[in-house]
Amino acid sequence: MPPQYSPSLRLSLPLVAFLLETIFILLFVFFVKIEHHEQVHTKFDKKTFIRSYAEFQDVHVMIFMGFGFLATFLVRYGFSGSGFNMLVAAMSIQWAILMNGFLLPQRHHSREIYVNLKSLIEAELCAASALVAMGAVHGKTNPVQLQLMAMVEVTGFVVSQWILRTLLHADPLYSFMLLHIFGALFGVMVSWVLHREGIKPQHEKEKTDHRSGLFAMLGMLFLWMFWPSFNSTLVHHRERGLKLTVIYGTYLSLAVSVVIAMSISMLFSSKGKINMMHVQSSALSGGVAIGVAMTAVHAPWVAMTIGFCAALLSTLGFRYMKGHMLFAFECHDTCGVINVHAIPGILGWLAHLLLQMTSTESTIAMQFAVHHIFVLLITVCMSMVMGTATGLFLKWSFWRSQQDRKCFDDQAFWEFPNLVVQK
Amino acid sequence: MPPQYSPSLRLSLPLVAFLLETIFILLFVFFVKIEHHEQVHTKFDKKTFIRSYAEFQDVHVMIFMGFGFLATFLVRYGFSGSGFNMLVAAMSIQWAILMNGFLLPQRHHSREIYVNLKSLIEAELCAASALVAMGAVHGKTNPVQLQLMAMVEVTGFVVSQWILRTLLHADPLYSFMLLHIFGALFGVMVSWVLHREGIKPQHEKEKTDHRSGLFAMLGMLFLWMFWPSFNSTLVHHRERGLKLTVIYGTYLSLAVSVVIAMSISMLFSSKGKINMMHVQSSALSGGVAIGVAMTAVHAPWVAMTIGFCAALLSTLGFRYMKGHMLFAFECHDTCGVINVHAIPGILGWLAHLLLQMTSTESTIAMQFAVHHIFVLLITVCMSMVMGTATGLFLKWSFWRSQQDRKCFDDQAFWEFPNLVVQK
Amino acid sequence: MPPQYSPSLRLSLPLVAFLLETIFILLFVFFVKIEHHEQVHTKFDKKTFIRSYAEFQDVHVMIFMGFGFLATFLVRYGFSGSGFNMLVAAMSIQWAILMNGFLLPQRHHSREIYVNLKSLIEAELCAASALVAMGAVHGKTNPVQLQLMAMVEVTGFVVSQWILRTLLHADPLYSFMLLHIFGALFGVMVSWVLHREGIKPQHEKEKTDHRSGLFAMLGMLFLWMFWPSFNSTLVHHRERGLKLTVIYGTYLSLAVSVVIAMSISMLFSSKGKINMMHVQSSALSGGVAIGVAMTAVHAPWVAMTIGFCAALLSTLGFRYMKGHMLFAFECHDTCGVINVHAIPGILGWLAHLLLQMTSTESTIAMQFAVHHIFVLLITVCMSMVMGTATGLFLKWSFWRSQQDRKCFDDQAFWEFPNLVVQK
Repeated sequence: MPPQYSPSLRLSLPLVAFLLETIFILLFVFFVKIEHHEQVHTKFDKKTFIRSYAEFQDVHVMIFMGFGFLATFLVRYGFSGSGFNMLVAAMSIQWAILMNGFLLPQRHHSREIYVNLKSLIEAELCAASALVAMGAVHGKTNPVQLQLMAMVEVTGFVVSQWILRTLLHADPLYSFMLLHIFGALFGVMVSWVLHREGIKPQHEKEKTDHRSGLFAMLGMLFLWMFWPSFNSTLVHHRERGLKLTVIYGTYLSLAVSVVIAMSISMLFSSKGKINMMHVQSSALSGGVAIGVAMTAVHAPWVAMTIGFCAALLSTLGFRYMKGHMLFAFECHDTCGVINVHAIPGILGWLAHLLLQMTSTESTIAMQFAVHHIFVLLITVCMSMVMGTATGLFLKWSFWRSQQDRKCFDDQAFWEFPNLVVQK
Repeated sequence: MPPQYSPSLRLSLPLVAFLLETIFILLFVFFVKIEHHEQVHTKFDKKTFIRSYAEFQDVHVMIFMGFGFLATFLVRYGFSGSGFNMLVAAMSIQWAILMNGFLLPQRHHSREIYVNLKSLIEAELCAASALVAMGAVHGKTNPVQLQLMAMVEVTGFVVSQWILRTLLHADPLYSFMLLHIFGALFGVMVSWVLHREGIKPQHEKEKTDHRSGLFAMLGMLFLWMFWPSFNSTLVHHRERGLKLTVIYGTYLSLAVSVVIAMSISMLFSSKGKINMMHVQSSALSGGVAIGVAMTAVHAPWVAMTIGFCAALLSTLGFRYMKGHMLFAFECHDTCGVINVHAIPGILGWLAHLLLQMTSTESTIAMQFAVHHIFVLLITVCMSMVMGTATGLFLKWSFWRSQQDRKCFDDQAFWEFPNLVVQK
Repeated sequence: MPPQYSPSLRLSLPLVAFLLETIFILLFVFFVKIEHHEQVHTKFDKKTFIRSYAEFQDVHVMIFMGFGFLATFLVRYGFSGSGFNMLVAAMSIQWAILMNGFLLPQRHHSREIYVNLKSLIEAELCAASALVAMGAVHGKTNPVQLQLMAMVEVTGFVVSQWILRTLLHADPLYSFMLLHIFGALFGVMVSWVLHREGIKPQHEKEKTDHRSGLFAMLGMLFLWMFWPSFNSTLVHHRERGLKLTVIYGTYLSLAVSVVIAMSISMLFSSKGKINMMHVQSSALSGGVAIGVAMTAVHAPWVAMTIGFCAALLSTLGFRYMKGHMLFAFECHDTCGVINVHAIPGILGWLAHLLLQMTSTESTIAMQFAVHHIFVLLITVCMSMVMGTATGLFLKWSFWRSQQDRKCFDDQAFWEFPNLVVQK
């Protein structure tokens, strides 16, 4: 049954996927081992295992279920939103295990990479940064482009981690949380380079409805509920005080976020109604902000105030900045990642700076501030430069991006042989 | 861009939410601390932490995911069902942390309230009682009314807890589980006072369909699956035997419930078909009943029998009592909380009484019975009186409840600018 | 209000369910106890409890949420897919606790059956085998038939376990994982016997759409995410090295599976588009294959290769074998369980054989091979014989299966009094 000619991804997607998978498996053959039995026999590690496995699963659920279903909010793009999320996350994790192992080895003097819960969690956080970036270009790129973008993004994020840790001796706990800023700016730059006139002023398929809103609610809830685990997962179990503080702080910050996001969304609506998409996105901003600031937050009310401000800025960003960005800068940001990840991330960075400066004496505070500013600058520059470069590479017509009228539409990639038409 | 005038909640919801959040944050500034590092350094606490965090998350998922999606069963009320659930739960938890800390402090001789997993779990249980109450008035009240009702309900529930514990020396384990009876009766009384003729005999929008039924299934499943954690979460880890008994008992009771709910729903249907809404509600009744009776249940078959009876009564209640209540008492109970929470709760109370009386000698049994009856009476009276008072307060036209024709309709509160009409 | 006559399940379903429940409760009265407090006081057991409860819940979520929602992919069969999954699983678990207790007791010299986490996990695995079997006959049988089939299937699976363990001294860890092969072949044989001409070439209601595809995605994701727990749950906590190896291996195998399933589905589509149903099913095949092979897999790349091959075979099976089976053998397999469970299971069995034979010397390898082949043969024969017998029993018109035109249709079993028609 020779198939008819089709100007589709029929060859390129399988080719890219097979090629990458083959490379991954070969690299795994030579470099990656599962942590040996003897290496995990101490009493301490046993306990760590129990806790880490539950935390790992929370993060796992957030990456696949949370991000995946949050991306189903577009009414005709649900299969792609959740399906490509899974595809990209699965590939990013494999690549991140390798990249993290090569650049940020857990053991010095060892050329082998060990798979353990820590390496898997770190790989999932790298995948999260790629998924954040993907949020900005959703619906306007094909899965081949998404895969390639994710590979570059993960590479860039790990390299930026390596720079921050070796040059600036940044705390891994803190540098990993910059994934929100890195991912969001990377994605926005890619989206800016890939801008197409056809989606302006509003693409007819960029819509949401009752059904897709509830599916997105589902993804958002899983992100929202497990965010305390996401923020605390890298805190070592020996530092229990900090771990608990992060958990409670994130929890309270998110609880305030959701209330403020709903209120602001209603207050600034001309008809006095709440916009579900804004709430679903902005309710998460408290978790982002507190994640970046977390090591400096010690009192519940500080966490709540950060959640308050993050949701305020984020919701206002959705109401007023999103349209602006499209018209003034020709930059279209499908999921509004700049309002959910970049701005709350920078707010968290600022809160961290202020909290640290008020609690230490002036000389150390000055040193900290300089260091802190450099960390942000490097992250922002790396992400914007790499995002622009990736955008230019993906603009190449060889990748056969979908036509304008097929944007935000599952029909371009998914079979609906049995589709029941709602007539 | 000055918005046009609108007789909406545009000002009242943000105002109430901001006011409450500001008060909460201020109270947190002065009274609430995160549990200090030094206070949790013992070996015992470490283990407790591991277990409690997982249990806490199960309860957390039930409150936000379970209750939220169970309330999406109305075909046009999905956004409100899940969205207002999140809003009300987030506020109730913050308020319950404060109320529990003031009235039921974990440490005597301390004026400070500590945030720890125990206080969060207890706050979530208080929020659960508010969500149960909300089930009775869903679709007929606006979010401002829901918020105010939840604040009063949580206050009332904590006060009733305080009375039971100080006057009657009731076991916290048992008194917390009365949240089902308290919440359900409170909600039903509010609904009775707020009765509107327009929703009788059947409001045209109070419907369910394939889609909303499956979303509700989702919420119901999360409640059903994690109910063993809900019932056992307050049992101290030192009492492992009891904890395990509660987990297994709840599990078996729920397994029987679901079978019986389906069978009864089919048996008493004139066309021999199952009603999904009845099943989704009544399958949970086994968990409610065993929750109230749990400290007295030691054999698996007792748990199964309780699940059997609870599902039987609850499903019959849905088939025959729900319509009756509307016509005879003018009391409309949207989610049928009286059949899911109140009646199975009282059944559990009765089972507790019988089991305890048969296992002890007559004098002690008599004392127990008197005590037990007083506990129920106080709970019932408190909830009904406070529910009626709250209903009268919310009837005030100042709160601008939606018009009759906008009941059970998301359009009253949510923006659908991009709504794709299913034509 | 005497109901009108109806040729429905109005009497048979409640009757069968009540009868079975009564028998179960009576058997529980005499034989089943909750594990005593004193029996779980050792330090080791305490730790085991913590870990096992979290693992148990992962499996619990897979059984009820995962299998339940994966079965909602048919556009008009969502209520039945998830509802009957819950009904059948709840009954199978109760029956499996009894059967496992009688035939495979945890303690020798004891006639009592103890409910503990291990017995619940084993019961859920037996229920999983029944749910796999149910996947083959979904939409073509009524709930009474499904219940009876599940009872026989669980009995057959436990008996086959008993034979493998007593006659061939098979490792429980390995023999339990044969549930995929047993369940799939059992179900396919039942479906073959129950074949009806009316569903050929394609039943008009055997369709999927955007909405049901996303609900199925949800179920698939929960299965996919928690599969590492499913495979590792029976590994004893003392063998931590093996447990971790199984977790990491399953994780990596599944990550490769999802990429390959999408690629193959696109490559072999005539229009170069991905079929969501194939992906949802085949992405899980890596977990099935590695589950059967797991005790012999020690390197990450081996796990990834197994996942690669399993997804390849499974997706090709969906593209080319499913239609073939219907036309050549008159065997209709609703969920394609032969491609998701049987073929990847046998692939895993083969991988196990090869890996074991290459790592041991020739005499032992030969012995192992003979033993290994016998285990498969017994499983295959038992499942096919019992499946055929069950099919013949269920063909009896007494059970009143739905008419051909009511296949794959919720209307046959569920009330839609308030159904809002999408006009």
